[in-house]
Amino acid sequence: MRCDRLWFRARLLTFDPGRPGLGAIDDGLIATQDGRIAYAGEAQVAPSALDAAERIDCAGRWVTPGLVDCHTHLVFAGDRAGEFAQRLAGASYEEIARAGGGILSTVRATRAADETALLAATLPRLDALLAEGATTVEVKSGYGLQATAELRQLRVARYLAGLRPVRIVPTFLGAHALPPEAIDADTYVEQVCRDMIPAVAAAKLAAAADVFCERIAFSPEQAARVLAAARAAGLAVKLHADQLSDLGGAGLAAEHGALSADHLEYASDAGVAAMARAGTVAVLLPGAFHVLRETRVPPVAALRHHGVPIALATDCNPGTSPLTSLLLTMNLAATLFRLTVEECLAGVTREAARALGRLPDIGTLQPGKVCDLAIWDIETPAELVWRMGFNPLHQRVFGGVPCRP
Amino acid sequence: MRCDRLWFRARLLTFDPGRPGLGAIDDGLIATQDGRIAYAGEAQVAPSALDAAERIDCAGRWVTPGLVDCHTHLVFAGDRAGEFAQRLAGASYEEIARAGGGILSTVRATRAADETALLAATLPRLDALLAEGATTVEVKSGYGLQATAELRQLRVARYLAGLRPVRIVPTFLGAHALPPEAIDADTYVEQVCRDMIPAVAAAKLAAAADVFCERIAFSPEQAARVLAAARAAGLAVKLHADQLSDLGGAGLAAEHGALSADHLEYASDAGVAAMARAGTVAVLLPGAFHVLRETRVPPVAALRHHGVPIALATDCNPGTSPLTSLLLTMNLAATLFRLTVEECLAGVTREAARALGRLPDIGTLQPGKVCDLAIWDIETPAELVWRMGFNPLHQRVFGGVPCRP
Ligand SMILES: [Zn+2]
Ligand SMILES: [Zn+2]
Repeated sequence: MRCDRLWFRARLLTFDPGRPGLGAIDDGLIATQDGRIAYAGEAQVAPSALDAAERIDCAGRWVTPGLVDCHTHLVFAGDRAGEFAQRLAGASYEEIARAGGGILSTVRATRAADETALLAATLPRLDALLAEGATTVEVKSGYGLQATAELRQLRVARYLAGLRPVRIVPTFLGAHALPPEAIDADTYVEQVCRDMIPAVAAAKLAAAADVFCERIAFSPEQAARVLAAARAAGLAVKLHADQLSDLGGAGLAAEHGALSADHLEYASDAGVAAMARAGTVAVLLPGAFHVLRETRVPPVAALRHHGVPIALATDCNPGTSPLTSLLLTMNLAATLFRLTVEECLAGVTREAARALGRLPDIGTLQPGKVCDLAIWDIETPAELVWRMGFNPLHQRVFGGVPCRP
Repeated sequence: MRCDRLWFRARLLTFDPGRPGLGAIDDGLIATQDGRIAYAGEAQVAPSALDAAERIDCAGRWVTPGLVDCHTHLVFAGDRAGEFAQRLAGASYEEIARAGGGILSTVRATRAADETALLAATLPRLDALLAEGATTVEVKSGYGLQATAELRQLRVARYLAGLRPVRIVPTFLGAHALPPEAIDADTYVEQVCRDMIPAVAAAKLAAAADVFCERIAFSPEQAARVLAAARAAGLAVKLHADQLSDLGGAGLAAEHGALSADHLEYASDAGVAAMARAGTVAVLLPGAFHVLRETRVPPVAALRHHGVPIALATDCNPGTSPLTSLLLTMNLAATLFRLTVEECLAGVTREAARALGRLPDIGTLQPGKVCDLAIWDIETPAELVWRMGFNPLHQRVFGGVPCRP
């Protein structure tokens, strides 16, 4: 069997559901051909005639699928570190909003930025994710809140994939917040459904649509209208659900066949059960939980009980989760939500791929999938979750090609 | 005025106590001569005849003193990520200890490691700190718990400074835990005082001695004996105090003129007042607080009220703080302890230098001090505290010499 490149003396975490646990293989070998995985498994049962143009000795290093960040708001302009400083100095959220802070300050800055400025602001954040082994990154719009600016954000997201070896999965989040010029929420939702979603779908600028369903954003009824319009336009759907209160977001996401419902701190047991029936993935976002100092953790026991797949993501955004590390995301999920090491690792690989509807292509080390790898200088996979502020990435491989991290 | 090198178009955080706030200077200039700061201040009032062999344009970047990690247990062998995995999977601390885990597993691994192995294990941790702008790192012994192994740990700490451009400040922590072969705690403390402290002092292998004063370690009476012996041997002293219970550690540290009392979650108001009178610095360690999911925060209001200087450190250690990031340490201190941005930044520079008794030499940008700098690609200093998993270091300067981060 001919292949372009193979990695040997590798310890693999395949995440192959056909193997026990995380599908670990101690003396493993991976071969790539035309950007896909040709073989991933035990070295001694590999096709004997594996004939590779390039052979890479992993010297016992661990190899995982490239990491997947399945929920980010990576493209934005401006910075809100100053608001954090003000809050620590005693200012209330209301005072900061009155002084022009909050999400609308990001909307102003993002609307004012041209594509070059948006790219320049976004690339360092993307690079931080890639430096830790990410190969797929979801990117939401939602700081434009009008057709032109929303489409610009999504175009910038697309450009990222031309500038770096990474797969970008764009999501339209026009219903993120009420723009300052809106007459009322229903009128704005009408614009999102009638104007923006068809434009986004026609330009193929997003794979899915998302809504922020919360008392401070859009109601379940408004969210339902957006999800229905998105489905009608051929987009997959996702939902920011039950983060700060139980509005039935989990159930709503399930009802619309959402790929994922995200946050979920206040999701009810019935909502979780509905997600299980619908195959909707739970995306937990411990960065925002940490920053907001929330005390109510997502219903992990119910998610396990009903068999809902659990993914993790950075939720990278300028207001509530200034986080550009999937390694740290795992540590926060383990420490704060008590996810196991196995759940954390699957949460940023296989289950994150599932949350993007991309599991057939990425997220595990199985023949036929894209050969996206992260190769780690660690003794045990648990180190990836345990250590904080430490990056043991040895190399990132995107589509079968080793890249500089 | 002749100098070796100068940095211009710099925004400075000098931490000069003679200036308001953090001593920020918008159009700043720093000049170095023979490794020391010759000038740090406004560009337009700089000596007009500043004649530098090399002129470096900072292009408006922010410059802070090199960061100081004033409390680490950086030198150890072995890894305890597996224990974390077991705890998340439901095992109790007792079960893990019975299975050979806990601090004694680190002691076994560290005793078994030769100097080369210890260095190899430690360097990646040190490099992670340096990559974020640290220029001074305190390193404690305490995993040897017998003369030979304790001295070996301290020698390895000293070697670090030969292998990397960094200032290492070694601390003897023989009284960290009871070694397995000890007859009883008093007998071991006697060995620490009679054999180890004189040996450490004679070999000049430590600048200070430290004790873990806690119910699970050494009593205040035992700690007092060690502190007295250390002072008699000419060492400065520090104390792990009041982390899990109020044993009067803060007051004990003050009574012995300690440079710092560290942790302090349970310190009493009287203890804090005594620290203020003694000039003892409070070193807060939010990494361990996070990992142990503690709920009682250190008495920040009392520290402010009494005017106790507050420093921050990683407490990098294999069991309770697997943290090798001073940036993340600041984020945790702000988020969990509600320290202000200013307190966090001073806590890893000026106050950390004070906690090591090295303020005359490092920790601020003032003429005469060592020219240790961190140059940052940020718009505002608050970003250093706000962002998580992001490293905006542009360059590190050690003793006036730019180094690769
Ligand atoms: Zn979000
Ligand atoms: Zn410590």
